[in-house]
Amino acid sequence: MPELRKDAVTRRWVIIATERAARPSDFPVLPPEPDTSATCPFCEGREAKTPPEIVAMRRSGGAADGPGWQVRVVPNKYPALRIEGSTEVTTNGMFETMGGVGAHEVIIETPRHLEHPGVMAPGQLASVLWMYRERYRDLDRDERFRYLLLFRNHGRSAGASLAHPHSQLIALPIVPKRAIEELEGAQEYFAREGRCVYCDVLRQEEAERTRIVWQNDEFIAFAPYASWCPFELWILPRTHVASFGDLGDNQILPLAETLQQVLARLNAALHNPPYNYIIHTAPYVGKAGHFYHWHIEVLPRLSYVAGFEWGSGFYINTVPPEDAARYLSEAALPVPSAEETPAR
Amino acid sequence: MPELRKDAVTRRWVIIATERAARPSDFPVLPPEPDTSATCPFCEGREAKTPPEIVAMRRSGGAADGPGWQVRVVPNKYPALRIEGSTEVTTNGMFETMGGVGAHEVIIETPRHLEHPGVMAPGQLASVLWMYRERYRDLDRDERFRYLLLFRNHGRSAGASLAHPHSQLIALPIVPKRAIEELEGAQEYFAREGRCVYCDVLRQEEAERTRIVWQNDEFIAFAPYASWCPFELWILPRTHVASFGDLGDNQILPLAETLQQVLARLNAALHNPPYNYIIHTAPYVGKAGHFYHWHIEVLPRLSYVAGFEWGSGFYINTVPPEDAARYLSEAALPVPSAEETPAR
Repeated sequence: MPELRKDAVTRRWVIIATERAARPSDFPVLPPEPDTSATCPFCEGREAKTPPEIVAMRRSGGAADGPGWQVRVVPNKYPALRIEGSTEVTTNGMFETMGGVGAHEVIIETPRHLEHPGVMAPGQLASVLWMYRERYRDLDRDERFRYLLLFRNHGRSAGASLAHPHSQLIALPIVPKRAIEELEGAQEYFAREGRCVYCDVLRQEEAERTRIVWQNDEFIAFAPYASWCPFELWILPRTHVASFGDLGDNQILPLAETLQQVLARLNAALHNPPYNYIIHTAPYVGKAGHFYHWHIEVLPRLSYVAGFEWGSGFYINTVPPEDAARYLSEAALPVPSAEETPAR
Repeated sequence: MPELRKDAVTRRWVIIATERAARPSDFPVLPPEPDTSATCPFCEGREAKTPPEIVAMRRSGGAADGPGWQVRVVPNKYPALRIEGSTEVTTNGMFETMGGVGAHEVIIETPRHLEHPGVMAPGQLASVLWMYRERYRDLDRDERFRYLLLFRNHGRSAGASLAHPHSQLIALPIVPKRAIEELEGAQEYFAREGRCVYCDVLRQEEAERTRIVWQNDEFIAFAPYASWCPFELWILPRTHVASFGDLGDNQILPLAETLQQVLARLNAALHNPPYNYIIHTAPYVGKAGHFYHWHIEVLPRLSYVAGFEWGSGFYINTVPPEDAARYLSEAALPVPSAEETPAR
């Protein structure tokens, strides 16, 4: 019998298919994407092919927009929003509109074309996360922005138009709907129970142990109880902190380790599937400190969003999260790269 | 400059890309799907290949599960939910679960394999809509069900696993998230303004006239102001009614006409694109009569849902709805089929 499960934060119900549940081998293996390294604008040495850099992490100093960097941040060449302008709301009858003001940046995660986070040295991935936090804090200074969307698209069918490892950020003058849902759900839970809903989820996941994929002293990665897509994973810091901008220095390497374990296991179990991950954080404005808890949601793109799911917000998940966690825990990982942790 | 627009009902903001806006020719034309008519289980004469029918509309009487039908309803062979069982909620710590109880039916829209609603005679489409309403009312009698999701997937990439024209319904023991969002948004608007938000949208669309695709005395079809995907369309009844189950006899033919115009225009302008439509209605339970307004949302599936949109609920629409409405209004339609309206 299939099961309906309710997400404790957003109160969304999902169908978890228990009969004929899918296994990793039931999902198609996508053909490798064409090799675009010969013309890739994100590779080291082709810095002139991107807009001038906003910031870069360089081992040995070196001039901006030249080689020698480890992580490089540039404006998106085709931005969804423009950095100049006002965020005044204008109304036209019952309709509201606002200028499309915002920052849209690309974080180039490595100078090497094929060094994806599932295989890169943990030190390199730590540099990427350090840069995420830098950009988070820097954009917090712009009074127009209310929310920062930090995300990674991996694979063409997950929206990555370039294969070179990169993440993106969009600083927004509004708070996106999904964030509002989580904030409202967490606030209601806090009002009712007097505790953070994510802390409670963490406690129950640790007690049940059936959905955990990986954990260390600072972070836990698990397939959430009411996963809405196959192999959905959450990475939750053990410490209750609302904003990603407050990620501690001592948390960066443990987070890199956790994220890499998650991505490497997806890679191994599902043959380099397309995925998105999104950092869910409190908005820049408002007091969410006591009830919200930042985290990362990883969403493999294994199946089309079929039909009614697209417009109803009601999902059928063909892989119970307990199965997903088991497949990923048991995945055979390649021996990690021995590259030393880069200096910062 | 791109524009941020807010949906008046759900308060979701979308980015409308105004520079480099896409035109119909910018979307890929999908190759025709393979001809599956030789083995199609939904074609007339192969009734034994489906589970026994729940109900059918037959011109001349005739036995169940034999030929001679116009519209036929069968259980889904691979149901997402099971019809037997209880809807008791069980809790496991902070997690809630419920047996996957529900109805999952297929409405076979025509005995003819390639007669899709964009090209079928309006009388045939009216029969389909009449059957939708019959199923809506019949399933209302089951006390376990709180919501009916009635939808159509067209094209493989929109989730249609069979090419033969069919719709589906899922009767649910819970109200799906998207419906809750609309109900809450409409209720808040009513509390604030004392009017139905959809009636107000309708009035403003009629006044502005820039987003209307088609209208008759009973229905209006338009590209909503804050469309979240290219060529999103809403079909709204002019009369304020909350539940699709209250569709009047005299509204069935005008609705068939409107739906056909919409689908035929999408067909013509975008070369038979994949799409989903979903009937948005009030739940079976609760008093939404004064503030909710049933309608149909048509969602062409022209682009992948890329990356961050998938998990953030924040969308970038590359076709301003004013452009979409103009392209569809101007689409050259084929001369309609002359088949007579079937008796009922």
